[in-house]
Amino acid sequence: MSPSIVSVEAHDVRFPTSRMLDGSDAMNPDPDYSAAYVIVRTDAGDGHEGHGFAFTIGRGNDLQTAAIATLAPLVEGLPLDDTLADMGAFWRHLVHDSQLRWLGPEKGVVHMAIGALVNAVWDLKAKREGKPLWKLLADLTPEQIVDLVDFRYLTDALTRDEALSILRGAAAGRAEREEHLRANGYPAYTTTPGWLGYDDDKLARLCKEALAAGFDQIKLKVGADLDDDIRRMRIAREICGPDVLIGVDANQRWDTDVAVEWIRALAPYDPCWVEEPTSPDDILAHAEIARAVAPIKIATGEHVQNRVVVKQLLQARAIEVLQIDATRVAGVNENIANLLLAAKFGVPVCPHAGGVGLCELVQHLAMFDYVAVSGSLDGRVIEYVDHLHEHFLDPVVMDHGRYRAPTEPGFSSTVRQDTLTTYAYPGGPAWTG
Amino acid sequence: MSPSIVSVEAHDVRFPTSRMLDGSDAMNPDPDYSAAYVIVRTDAGDGHEGHGFAFTIGRGNDLQTAAIATLAPLVEGLPLDDTLADMGAFWRHLVHDSQLRWLGPEKGVVHMAIGALVNAVWDLKAKREGKPLWKLLADLTPEQIVDLVDFRYLTDALTRDEALSILRGAAAGRAEREEHLRANGYPAYTTTPGWLGYDDDKLARLCKEALAAGFDQIKLKVGADLDDDIRRMRIAREICGPDVLIGVDANQRWDTDVAVEWIRALAPYDPCWVEEPTSPDDILAHAEIARAVAPIKIATGEHVQNRVVVKQLLQARAIEVLQIDATRVAGVNENIANLLLAAKFGVPVCPHAGGVGLCELVQHLAMFDYVAVSGSLDGRVIEYVDHLHEHFLDPVVMDHGRYRAPTEPGFSSTVRQDTLTTYAYPGGPAWTG
Repeated sequence: MSPSIVSVEAHDVRFPTSRMLDGSDAMNPDPDYSAAYVIVRTDAGDGHEGHGFAFTIGRGNDLQTAAIATLAPLVEGLPLDDTLADMGAFWRHLVHDSQLRWLGPEKGVVHMAIGALVNAVWDLKAKREGKPLWKLLADLTPEQIVDLVDFRYLTDALTRDEALSILRGAAAGRAEREEHLRANGYPAYTTTPGWLGYDDDKLARLCKEALAAGFDQIKLKVGADLDDDIRRMRIAREICGPDVLIGVDANQRWDTDVAVEWIRALAPYDPCWVEEPTSPDDILAHAEIARAVAPIKIATGEHVQNRVVVKQLLQARAIEVLQIDATRVAGVNENIANLLLAAKFGVPVCPHAGGVGLCELVQHLAMFDYVAVSGSLDGRVIEYVDHLHEHFLDPVVMDHGRYRAPTEPGFSSTVRQDTLTTYAYPGGPAWTG
Repeated sequence: MSPSIVSVEAHDVRFPTSRMLDGSDAMNPDPDYSAAYVIVRTDAGDGHEGHGFAFTIGRGNDLQTAAIATLAPLVEGLPLDDTLADMGAFWRHLVHDSQLRWLGPEKGVVHMAIGALVNAVWDLKAKREGKPLWKLLADLTPEQIVDLVDFRYLTDALTRDEALSILRGAAAGRAEREEHLRANGYPAYTTTPGWLGYDDDKLARLCKEALAAGFDQIKLKVGADLDDDIRRMRIAREICGPDVLIGVDANQRWDTDVAVEWIRALAPYDPCWVEEPTSPDDILAHAEIARAVAPIKIATGEHVQNRVVVKQLLQARAIEVLQIDATRVAGVNENIANLLLAAKFGVPVCPHAGGVGLCELVQHLAMFDYVAVSGSLDGRVIEYVDHLHEHFLDPVVMDHGRYRAPTEPGFSSTVRQDTLTTYAYPGGPAWTG
């Protein structure tokens, strides 16, 4: 008997982060960082499980968890070896279900649930192969990598052959870059100082701590009040000096004309990029803002629903920084499409992270990008936030402002068993106590 | 004591339409037309309930129903009079919940659930005022209408003042157009002949029946096989003659270059528009296809997630026909934004309908558009499909290829009680029998 996937178990896990205003920004005043968490089990008898999750910020995490359960019948019973051998087919099996597709298509709760499942099965595959996910991906051939990607709706910007060319072009230096990555890690920036709910003293103190920890880029949340933003940006710039990069993040608060005005008012403090100036759906507005505020860079991605919107943001020259998120789109496969699109357009990928476990996941994608896709670290940093890492079995390791390359097998996505119990919502002791 | 909304009750209702291949197209081979149905009850003691729903095509309707239940706590307990008096505030209360917003934002399952609730409360309001919804809306002042719209992310294309100008410009002829509407109805086209699962004989027979019923526009599903499409288009054109309009609908099957090639191959049969040539998220691809196949018109809308994407399709001149859907976006309010955007850009609105109850709902929006927004019937038709109307208490009435204006109070959204029981999924006798 060849082994099968036997169960998909979904958990609603929430952390009461709103009590400290951690994670507060202009659009999200009081998030409770949460995970719709999934465990995929097999009857292979090897002790390996696949763990994955979608990240949410509280209310609705029950619905996100239910979405994973809705998809479970498409996964339970699948033959294990065939599934792991053709992860492109597995992705299409979930994304192209003709009835479920109506609920998106390819966006929102269902798409994020597919992302959780796809990521969980990648975690399982990497554990079984005894490799961290970034290394597993970086060891694939260009042909194997493009087989993971669904090129539907992409071919006006990127064909399979073009993707193959990009990957073959990067094949030469893989070993050297892998060595560099293991020795030096991947550069990071920190958002920890800049949450909107923090007062000026806390902002100043956390900026100093960030510098002391070795970061040479930080980020501030903006967009609620212009005078506040100017004052906070001035404080941060005074402490950081002229050489440390400071990004700002408006979390979708502005319409086009307000964005342009606000960004110009912050320009004297030299923001290295402006993130999410407006709706993540608004390709044309991003392009218009980018033209108006150049050379200040526009960045987005954490709420970009799928590869079709990523493609257009790049085609329209609407962004100069792509911020992929590990759990917004349909998992590893779709983010490989996003990395290839960014490489095609020469736009650096600086992943969104923070939340619950987003740092743990997305580091693998950025490292794979460096070793096997873009082949570059120029202008590239992974976001870092120092929240909730203690709940993971294989948490990220920061080393003087850089992510150290994971060495444990898997996707670094496995949460501690006691965390699943303690933070279960609504019945866990963190919520009833 | 002033009355309140006391309960939000959600039902998973499904019709086994896949057994007859009704509704089959190139992307959706076997839909089971379904409704995530909601009943909003109050303690006003006037006997009125608000009924609304999101339309889906089967699997996942449980999740869509759960999404309505997730939103229920935001609605239950609201003061009734204040809520009905400021439906713009009610809309923002649901759409801008900061935690739930993460699950979209403003797209997919959560947004459709908001649409069901918003539409249900509009139904309640119209029943209480004793008017069909189209008439209730058409009796509002321009100021009251713009207060229903959230202009966030729209102002680069349409400001509140511009919307007011459009509505004031249409105010003069309202009474005359209302009279015309009551006397003559609203023009329709029928999709009944053209489902992809029907054989040539059935296609030919249904084309003849459509002409006999007074329709002067029909629609064919295309996109699975080009030779089949050419043959079916030729059959339809031969039966219809040169003067009847024939639209085609590819249901998102193509990439840009395939779309252009396929549309050119169908051009000799004079399609009046090509609907959903590619991903509904792909504004730039629609624009490219539209340029390449002009003067053949490109249409889309039924899967367009929100007003931000509608805005861009219009800004990019990507569509010449906007096909709003009553339950895809967040209900009446957002569709008023869409009608105003279309009026601003001079693009006719030809609503998507069919499914379960989509005809019943969207006729009200088109009629409101004619009386109070665009003020025109030129190039405007509402889709009609002859399925499932018997389940509604106030079904659409077709009169020689035109929708008769509803006269009953409400949104025509109330399903018969025995239907809710019979088609309850999975326990109803239609599914267990």
